[in-house]
Amino acid sequence: MNADAYERGLQIRREVLGDEYVDAALERATSSPFGTEWQRFVTEHCWDAVWGDEALPRATRSLITVAMLAVLGRTHELAAHIRGAQRNGCTRDEVRAVLIQAATYGGAPAGVEGFRVANEVWEQ
Amino acid sequence: MNADAYERGLQIRREVLGDEYVDAALERATSSPFGTEWQRFVTEHCWDAVWGDEALPRATRSLITVAMLAVLGRTHELAAHIRGAQRNGCTRDEVRAVLIQAATYGGAPAGVEGFRVANEVWEQ
Amino acid sequence: MNADAYERGLQIRREVLGDEYVDAALERATSSPFGTEWQRFVTEHCWDAVWGDEALPRATRSLITVAMLAVLGRTHELAAHIRGAQRNGCTRDEVRAVLIQAATYGGAPAGVEGFRVANEVWEQ
Amino acid sequence: MNADAYERGLQIRREVLGDEYVDAALERATSSPFGTEWQRFVTEHCWDAVWGDEALPRATRSLITVAMLAVLGRTHELAAHIRGAQRNGCTRDEVRAVLIQAATYGGAPAGVEGFRVANEVWEQ
Amino acid sequence: MNADAYERGLQIRREVLGDEYVDAALERATSSPFGTEWQRFVTEHCWDAVWGDEALPRATRSLITVAMLAVLGRTHELAAHIRGAQRNGCTRDEVRAVLIQAATYGGAPAGVEGFRVANEVWEQ
Amino acid sequence: MNADAYERGLQIRREVLGDEYVDAALERATSSPFGTEWQRFVTEHCWDAVWGDEALPRATRSLITVAMLAVLGRTHELAAHIRGAQRNGCTRDEVRAVLIQAATYGGAPAGVEGFRVANEVWEQ
Repeated sequence: MNADAYERGLQIRREVLGDEYVDAALERATSSPFGTEWQRFVTEHCWDAVWGDEALPRATRSLITVAMLAVLGRTHELAAHIRGAQRNGCTRDEVRAVLIQAATYGGAPAGVEGFRVANEVWEQ
Repeated sequence: MNADAYERGLQIRREVLGDEYVDAALERATSSPFGTEWQRFVTEHCWDAVWGDEALPRATRSLITVAMLAVLGRTHELAAHIRGAQRNGCTRDEVRAVLIQAATYGGAPAGVEGFRVANEVWEQ
Repeated sequence: MNADAYERGLQIRREVLGDEYVDAALERATSSPFGTEWQRFVTEHCWDAVWGDEALPRATRSLITVAMLAVLGRTHELAAHIRGAQRNGCTRDEVRAVLIQAATYGGAPAGVEGFRVANEVWEQ
Repeated sequence: MNADAYERGLQIRREVLGDEYVDAALERATSSPFGTEWQRFVTEHCWDAVWGDEALPRATRSLITVAMLAVLGRTHELAAHIRGAQRNGCTRDEVRAVLIQAATYGGAPAGVEGFRVANEVWEQ
Repeated sequence: MNADAYERGLQIRREVLGDEYVDAALERATSSPFGTEWQRFVTEHCWDAVWGDEALPRATRSLITVAMLAVLGRTHELAAHIRGAQRNGCTRDEVRAVLIQAATYGGAPAGVEGFRVANEVWEQ
Repeated sequence: MNADAYERGLQIRREVLGDEYVDAALERATSSPFGTEWQRFVTEHCWDAVWGDEALPRATRSLITVAMLAVLGRTHELAAHIRGAQRNGCTRDEVRAVLIQAATYGGAPAGVEGFRVANEVWEQ
């Protein structure tokens, strides 16, 4: 494990998904059989290695992530990243546009699921 | 937006999925942040453009839709379209046959999910 | 292995995909490291167990198969089954309709691939 | 249907998933519209034809199944087969390793879902 | 069919993918059994309805499309849209970043394929 | 970038896929627009972080990888990893068994593709 990558990744993850969400994930992890190792892996290999690369603005990364999660049918993760898109400053109109695009390239059911989740997130 | 396409699509959608289901979807849409735009999009681009084409009987379209949703793992949509298959006159035996076919071409888990959903729909 | 299931499955497979195609597949299998076992498996578990069930007409099964292969992105198999659809009496218009439906439920790239393959098959 | 294959498959399924799980599935099947036919199909074509082949140890089959279900996003089935992996003697460390591998080859969301399910199973 | 939507969509498609590419596609379509209907469908329902919505800049749409096609494994389409990303002004660095992101969320093989295609496009 | 992780990962990759294959990949990378960055990423985040974890024997990792690539439809990568399975000591019978399992859990087309590729690799 690479401790620096973990710390950098954790900081980015907090900025994108929010302290409340990340604290809850880490706390669950502490008391769960597999939690800590996965938290370390995803923080280092996903949050640091991907989100830490500044070639793309975070708002654009959020829209790209939302599109991929919608077409892959990963509904739970999608909710967290639509919230992340909001935190990164994406507008309602941009989220609408990206979900319509996902429905067209990944199929109408990606839109049905995507908008169901987006409605829930936006209403909070 | 194309108002004629929307009206035609809405009529077909009502015939396939039932007034109760469609009214509920439209009502939820009215009060939700993204709802109306997506309802318009899917009604125009999916219900009118696809289901409005009479090259295939609706019962056949229903079976095809059930098969695709099963192999894509889109469980929520699958329930609505198994109900639609019933409304379009597909028999229990045809739905069984299409889900076995989906399990063979899309993998056994598509069958497990598909039959779980079909059992729930058929029991209502 | 179940010899009866194999023989029944082989007969159906010949009727759907044509003797020429099946003979070529079996001949390749004879001289290839893994071929025979897979030919036996797929003939017994797919052609007999699925296509041998007469709850659906073969033309309908063909359309359903074409739709699933298109949304799953299984391009090689798709060509064989569009040919099978032709042999089972599906019209050009029905194949067009099912590929448009696949493009809508499985995403536009499923349509791009599907029509590329369908054009090649139909031109032969 | 092949009665011998069904009986052999049922025995293996009981050994892998446990009597309690299989009895519950069969009981639900008895009283459900589609249940029995699917139970027969999956027991014969999946449990006998695949798991009955002794070319791979059952613990290895379990790890392979867990990996495939994780990347395919088949969460319900995944829980049953992580339990099966435990019953077949896979260690916590092996399950962790296979889910990290699935997250790398099938995408990080496969890891998020996979570890969520694995934590639930292991805590029981 | 909606002639206005087709004309608008065709114009956008030309701007994104280039006249050479679009002319070739239309010419192939004219002489192919299914071509014209699909060209009309995809131009109207994808290029006009999605790309015609100005809520997202075209460069951002390109990056989102590249990400989705990479995780969906739609390699042929991916090449056209990496070319489109270039035409829409995306830099090499942005394309690199989006493919690394796709590899992380959709699995390493999405990166292998994505970079193979991107290398070919960029060398031209 | 983490130079140690890269060196460790490169060593493992050479052992699994063979010097010839890896040298060719690195050489292509040197002269291609995106190559070096991706080679570094995949070597560090996939070969070191996943394959470097000794919780699973390499032969088991190979079978798991083959299964995942088959169900994901990643045919190019599949060829490299069936070769890797051979190098890691997997027998023809084990590869057959894992592809049959992939065909059952991921759909028959995963088997068709998988055995086509496996035949080519084994004949070399």
